[in-house]
Amino acid sequence: MIRFEQQINFLKEVDKLKNIIRRNYLCDGNRFENTAEHCWHLALMVMTLAEHANNEIDILKTILMLLIHDLVEIDAGDTYCYDSTGNETKAKREEAAADRIFSLLPLDQQKVYHQLWREFEEMETPESQFANAVDRLMPLIQNVETGGKTWQKNHISESQVLERNLPINDGSAVLWNYAKFLIKSSVTKGILNN
Amino acid sequence: MIRFEQQINFLKEVDKLKNIIRRNYLCDGNRFENTAEHCWHLALMVMTLAEHANNEIDILKTILMLLIHDLVEIDAGDTYCYDSTGNETKAKREEAAADRIFSLLPLDQQKVYHQLWREFEEMETPESQFANAVDRLMPLIQNVETGGKTWQKNHISESQVLERNLPINDGSAVLWNYAKFLIKSSVTKGILNN
Repeated sequence: MIRFEQQINFLKEVDKLKNIIRRNYLCDGNRFENTAEHCWHLALMVMTLAEHANNEIDILKTILMLLIHDLVEIDAGDTYCYDSTGNETKAKREEAAADRIFSLLPLDQQKVYHQLWREFEEMETPESQFANAVDRLMPLIQNVETGGKTWQKNHISESQVLERNLPINDGSAVLWNYAKFLIKSSVTKGILNN
Repeated sequence: MIRFEQQINFLKEVDKLKNIIRRNYLCDGNRFENTAEHCWHLALMVMTLAEHANNEIDILKTILMLLIHDLVEIDAGDTYCYDSTGNETKAKREEAAADRIFSLLPLDQQKVYHQLWREFEEMETPESQFANAVDRLMPLIQNVETGGKTWQKNHISESQVLERNLPINDGSAVLWNYAKFLIKSSVTKGILNN
């Protein structure tokens, strides 16, 4: 198959990410978010908030990472962040998904996409730490905007939300301060149980 | 208002783009696409296909342009590309929308986002020409994948599709050759009227 055909086949396949439904609502609370539109929002967050990263980041690399970081969900599905059973098998399911989906691409691109995905998962570089920070902050904002709808539905407590969001601090102290403020005021407002 | 608050308010406002519904279907034909997930797909197209641009492009700039190019639809709505009445008033409606939405940002970012949006619309730089090329190619692919569903529904003919997609050639001869192939074979298959 020629290179261009491989690329087009990949781009058709990833259309399926629009049908992967997450556990959080849009800000207006009317429906669940899908993973493709979530990734768009995160890329725009990096564009807008990069100045607040703890360390200088390569913005292009961070955005590319976020564009592809959830493609594995096409096969592995969205694992709810507070689902401990699902999270035990998550790594294995997502590794197999990455192998299948990225292998649609020409070999040089396969390697780049796979490496970016792994870097996101490992959270060791400034880019992946900031990418993970925005990936956690936006659902927190959406939860607050909808009056804690998913927290209440899933009986999530303040300590779980704090633990889930702590890695924001590795990417950005500014975003983490804001996250802590949101969590504390959610408890005060009675939309998150302590 | 402090800078960070302005940025967060902007990022909450743009969540509304997920509720703007386009006229084309997803590849599986099950529902219409929304504009936010469409923008994610286009950014990923640039990441994957940039090597086929007629002129060397700044990939980051092209992706940023696509992330924000449709934000005006939050106020102005999606104007169907073959709707001549809607397209007469489109520029004015979108200009007002850009003014309101970008003005949520700090002044320096307002200017950058507004300029990127205008550059996309003017189609004069290699980046905006390539961005416009992927913005036209993906709906064409989705139309073919769904057996020409929106073409038939709206009585669109081959000459209209050719005219709509001709600007792809300014961004990429490779993408334009592929677009012409898709259009011709759609007529042969009987899913597009000539």
